[in-house]
Amino acid sequence: MKDKKSLIVDMDGVLADIYKQLIKLEFEESGTRITVEETMGKTENDAFPNCQKLVKERGFFRNAPVMPGAIEVLKKLNEHYQLFVVSSAMEYPNSLEEKYYWMQEYFPFISWKQLVLCGTKTCVKGDIMIDDHFKNLDYFEGKTILFTQPHNSAKDENSHQRVHGWNDILKLLGEV
Amino acid sequence: MKDKKSLIVDMDGVLADIYKQLIKLEFEESGTRITVEETMGKTENDAFPNCQKLVKERGFFRNAPVMPGAIEVLKKLNEHYQLFVVSSAMEYPNSLEEKYYWMQEYFPFISWKQLVLCGTKTCVKGDIMIDDHFKNLDYFEGKTILFTQPHNSAKDENSHQRVHGWNDILKLLGEV
Repeated sequence: MKDKKSLIVDMDGVLADIYKQLIKLEFEESGTRITVEETMGKTENDAFPNCQKLVKERGFFRNAPVMPGAIEVLKKLNEHYQLFVVSSAMEYPNSLEEKYYWMQEYFPFISWKQLVLCGTKTCVKGDIMIDDHFKNLDYFEGKTILFTQPHNSAKDENSHQRVHGWNDILKLLGEV
Repeated sequence: MKDKKSLIVDMDGVLADIYKQLIKLEFEESGTRITVEETMGKTENDAFPNCQKLVKERGFFRNAPVMPGAIEVLKKLNEHYQLFVVSSAMEYPNSLEEKYYWMQEYFPFISWKQLVLCGTKTCVKGDIMIDDHFKNLDYFEGKTILFTQPHNSAKDENSHQRVHGWNDILKLLGEV
């Protein structure tokens, strides 16, 4: 039997819709209603005045909404790939347990054995990586897939294959 | 400038003295005083009747004693290697924050960017790995160093270089 290819999937901005969560919480915090269009080309920090305060609060990651299509597509990919969900979580120690239970709630078919919470991803290996940050993809040795998010939407970069959502990923990786 | 070699260091049974912690807590729990000699060749589960209960309790990892010599040697190695502390923590979600703060207390010179908490270590890459478990070393592509612990002491295995403590590691890796 041929070994399954290993697939490294990011959490924030790929499985979890962080901009949607920030739009909701920024409005609750300051009354400022920010649209997705206004965040285009901006980092979360630049787009949301209270970003640093909000991401440090208990519940920020635990209550983040799931990216549309992520559950269905990941469930399918999990059957065909040796899948790992790898998240840069260490900057916010609050988030560690929250991310564990968030995965359990929405992706119960992903075992704890497939979870990695880290500071940087430079010591992670695999055949394919899906991520929304160049800082992670640029160091990866395998095939790299850039998941479009507002902060990376303006960058015209050809070194990674760009996808615009989980349906794109299904088309790209679903036929194993 | 030559790139630094990357060094992957395990936490439980390498930086943290888990058997010492279990001996103390097993005595407090059941009144049974177990000696290190009695644990030789046995897994933690076989050596300590209340092991599974104890490791799940809050504080088990946060209050674990540091392995002798670990702080001094890791501080030195951290200057010469691209060092990552990689711990299989995901089986016990309680342990995630505890391990983060334990590292901060005893190894403040290790940044959060160098920490990885995972389920399995098969997606971790590096030049050198120090670990007390064959299940981690056997999958690693670089140089492997087996840290002697009671559970692996009886195994006569030549595929990994065995060390008997942090002084051995300093001798082996200190001359960079």
